[in-house]
Amino acid sequence: MTNSIQYPNKLHRSRKSGELEPKEKQAPLDNHSSRGTSLEDDLNASNQYYKDQKTALIYKKPTPIQVVRVDYPTRNRAKITEAYYRTPSTTDYNGLYKGHYIDFEAKQTQNPNLFPKYLVQPHQISHLKMVHDQGGIGFFIVRFTSHKETFLVDAMDLIQAHETIVAKSIPYSWFKEHGIVLREGLYPRIHYLEAVDKLYLNPSLKKGEIKKDKDA
Amino acid sequence: MTNSIQYPNKLHRSRKSGELEPKEKQAPLDNHSSRGTSLEDDLNASNQYYKDQKTALIYKKPTPIQVVRVDYPTRNRAKITEAYYRTPSTTDYNGLYKGHYIDFEAKQTQNPNLFPKYLVQPHQISHLKMVHDQGGIGFFIVRFTSHKETFLVDAMDLIQAHETIVAKSIPYSWFKEHGIVLREGLYPRIHYLEAVDKLYLNPSLKKGEIKKDKDA
Repeated sequence: MTNSIQYPNKLHRSRKSGELEPKEKQAPLDNHSSRGTSLEDDLNASNQYYKDQKTALIYKKPTPIQVVRVDYPTRNRAKITEAYYRTPSTTDYNGLYKGHYIDFEAKQTQNPNLFPKYLVQPHQISHLKMVHDQGGIGFFIVRFTSHKETFLVDAMDLIQAHETIVAKSIPYSWFKEHGIVLREGLYPRIHYLEAVDKLYLNPSLKKGEIKKDKDA
Repeated sequence: MTNSIQYPNKLHRSRKSGELEPKEKQAPLDNHSSRGTSLEDDLNASNQYYKDQKTALIYKKPTPIQVVRVDYPTRNRAKITEAYYRTPSTTDYNGLYKGHYIDFEAKQTQNPNLFPKYLVQPHQISHLKMVHDQGGIGFFIVRFTSHKETFLVDAMDLIQAHETIVAKSIPYSWFKEHGIVLREGLYPRIHYLEAVDKLYLNPSLKKGEIKKDKDA
């Protein structure tokens, strides 16, 4: 394709035409990996719903960007003309639910059998260990797109698997065993706070299935 | 000055030379208002200290930026060539302390007598009201640079003053009455968690001075 280099720029220009309107959600370009876009959209919509319903206050953090140069084409409009993505120090999502600090990272894979370990990065592991040590609730939301299944797994469980499994991937079966399958719908798209209740906040319910009962 | 337009670009260029090294702190350019830079630096250093000491896990959120165009001058290096600042929906800082969700905004003014109300923005007020409703700890850190004094004030107290005082500013005397003066030093530069203990987590200590004792 001769215009393979030009094509992305055209896309950017069409997006640019709308840039005076602040967007509700982050542009896909903000995401390093296009793999994560759809799960991210579902989580952002779910968090908006939870916020509107006064159920929880959970946000995706902005992507950290190092700004190098800013121009001022009009007096009140700063245009960033040179900037670079920076490596985050934390997870993507945090917030407040029933008085508890909530912190998580979301990942998805198209592989039906394996979750590649490289999807979980060292800064996410160290951050979620600190969240655990400080008494917060930390977890991963992992989607296997080919199964149309999304799991919530406790951060320390997944980190332990990440550190003990020698292979480069964690098998799908591990998530079936250790995770909670999240109910999906329209409002919210992902009912992940149900799983937070079950895993962390409701020790009386089905004792055998509860892995972390912090209030017990 | 004939080069008044060129001068900022020179500054940016000199900063650019170092951009391959990820910076520990945000470049001042990331901050819309240069007024906030020094308090921000002190808070970032304090949060780093609290994190290193395993006292708390509190971060400044990245400035939200709408990315419009990205070039790839080298294969692994994405260069953002067009982007715009977006209005945040939350406060700048949040995190976890002694199992509690912490959320705050930092402001400073050079005015010795008055804190201009416009420094506190509507999205910060609505966000901190929601934090309060959800059982989190929310506050403002306000520095009067001319007094070399930094106060911690409960978010709901400052919001009430913001909404009931008709004038465009809140007097310095209000902060003397309703705030806690923060001890400043080297490690951490601002001992603001002492004030969090006093205001929110230690109802037995000097009952008369405590405004919010959530655990009582």
